Amino acid sequence: MMGKKKILFNDVTLRDGMHAISHQYSVEQIAELTELIDDSGVDIIEATHGDGLGGSSIQYGFSKETEKDIITTAVKHAKNAKVGVLLIPGIGTIEHLKRASEWGASVVRVATHCTEADVSEQHIKAGIDLGMDTVGFLMMSHRAAPELLLEEAKKMESYGASTVYVVDSAGALTMDDTRRRVALFKENLSTQVGFHAHNNLSLGVANSIVAIEEGADRIDASLAGMGAGAGNASLEQLVAVMNKLDIPHHVDLYKAMDAAENVMKPMMKRPVQIDRLSLTLGYTGVYSSFLLFAERAGKEYGVDARDILTKLAEMEAVGGQEDWIIGVAQELAKAK
Amino acid sequence: MMGKKKILFNDVTLRDGMHAISHQYSVEQIAELTELIDDSGVDIIEATHGDGLGGSSIQYGFSKETEKDIITTAVKHAKNAKVGVLLIPGIGTIEHLKRASEWGASVVRVATHCTEADVSEQHIKAGIDLGMDTVGFLMMSHRAAPELLLEEAKKMESYGASTVYVVDSAGALTMDDTRRRVALFKENLSTQVGFHAHNNLSLGVANSIVAIEEGADRIDASLAGMGAGAGNASLEQLVAVMNKLDIPHHVDLYKAMDAAENVMKPMMKRPVQIDRLSLTLGYTGVYSSFLLFAERAGKEYGVDARDILTKLAEMEAVGGQEDWIIGVAQELAKAK
Repeated sequence: MMGKKKILFNDVTLRDGMHAISHQYSVEQIAELTELIDDSGVDIIEATHGDGLGGSSIQYGFSKETEKDIITTAVKHAKNAKVGVLLIPGIGTIEHLKRASEWGASVVRVATHCTEADVSEQHIKAGIDLGMDTVGFLMMSHRAAPELLLEEAKKMESYGASTVYVVDSAGALTMDDTRRRVALFKENLSTQVGFHAHNNLSLGVANSIVAIEEGADRIDASLAGMGAGAGNASLEQLVAVMNKLDIPHHVDLYKAMDAAENVMKPMMKRPVQIDRLSLTLGYTGVYSSFLLFAERAGKEYGVDARDILTKLAEMEAVGGQEDWIIGVAQELAKAK
Repeated sequence: MMGKKKILFNDVTLRDGMHAISHQYSVEQIAELTELIDDSGVDIIEATHGDGLGGSSIQYGFSKETEKDIITTAVKHAKNAKVGVLLIPGIGTIEHLKRASEWGASVVRVATHCTEADVSEQHIKAGIDLGMDTVGFLMMSHRAAPELLLEEAKKMESYGASTVYVVDSAGALTMDDTRRRVALFKENLSTQVGFHAHNNLSLGVANSIVAIEEGADRIDASLAGMGAGAGNASLEQLVAVMNKLDIPHHVDLYKAMDAAENVMKPMMKRPVQIDRLSLTLGYTGVYSSFLLFAERAGKEYGVDARDILTKLAEMEAVGGQEDWIIGVAQELAKAK
């Protein structure tokens, strides 16, 4: 495997992992985790509120530390890795990004819903103007057919993104779904291609391997899979499989294993695992915000919440359409 | 997908899952789990000591209930599913099998190390004579190259096995490893082909899907992945992915999810999950029933269980050689 490109790891322990700890990492924890992740050989360490710059709010949950402390702590303790931030236009602004850049962040991932890439234009251009490695991040990628997703990716490419990601926010992609999307990106984009997994269907590691087989350049992972819902692809598990397959990268397996086991897991407030709820999300591919409403409506109308979510997925409901839930529940109850 | 064959599920919650509860299921638990698994639509329910018939012993650990109580309880509570037993020649005998048959078991899986299929001849023939669905089970299949594994499978075929399994005892197969073995079996055997996963590399569900893609007829799974080491493929997760891929089977997803969440998980003595040790098992490829012994020996002798397992892998230890563990631990302790 000499001469084969090395896969770049973008660690999300300190960003997507923020969700799993309700954004409550302390600066001491951020410092310790950054040192360990950096020492393991990861290329980019993303450190931001789970919902990105500006995410600390009553709507998305307040982080324990300020944005400045999160980013500057990561920057201070990363000797080799670059520090990155997530920016979701509408939650974060270009002003947030300028400050993050001043604090030492040198990578930004501009994230939009998979069919709304056009809202990323100004933010991607701002990242480039700031001299940052600027990445497009297409969330809920399972909701767009591969050809449509490619059209959106091409927009991000045209704005100047160095890399465009297939982002499986709901952990809803099968291996073939992943293969088709990454392959299409690699064939048609001049950018690097990235893949971000969630483990709701227990396919986080497998999908990441499939993405690499199809030519993905960057892969997201986190210690012990620390991340929203069922978590992300676990860094140490993915590296173990990559080693077995002779896929080159910069990460030391045993350091990643030890950091996950000795430091990350004891910090977890709840185990990051696949439970009925997260499996349901991956199976139906709906937004997590629908879950609670569907459960309530299910109880009220005597139907299974999972059937409601499945129906909503068929209707392609997106965030903000929670008012459809009652109608669906009534319909299902009538059909019984 | 009309007309496509339905995949048969062989549930191992009450056999491989025995390992994860130190063989301590009570008859009440066996009754409750059998009813739920049976009601979910699984085709075969395997209920035996983790190491098969005759396994309850000082060497392999005593089960809480007698072999007779385990099997007759499962038979009594399985309305539709057949009840199966595992038989490892050398641990169990033909006499054990005759009794299991009298107690109502109608499926037997005769398990050998992947390069020792010839020791299964008499036992497979005995199973057939008893009128049982008799299956060959090639453990530690990662230890044999695909062509060698096929030679061993052909022996089991020649003895009359209805089905031969690729058994990933250590959770050490990658997706390509799985694909090659199952494809070769399907091309060259007239028997059904089965696949038994472990999740050490987080590929349990993915490998099972790959096996199905290559034509596997029977797949093992368990509620919440209950099984040795990092556990087996989780029934509810695998069924969710199969449903998304329109792969036909007899299992009701919601019933499997509810049984896993409401009944199986609360019974677990420790979470079935991928931790540093079980990941090491998959990475190094040692037998998964070594895990608890290596942990104990590691604590007793003050050495890292990972080092014990790595050494055992180098020695090519196989199931039944658990007695090597103490020696290795002592050796490592001395070397410190």
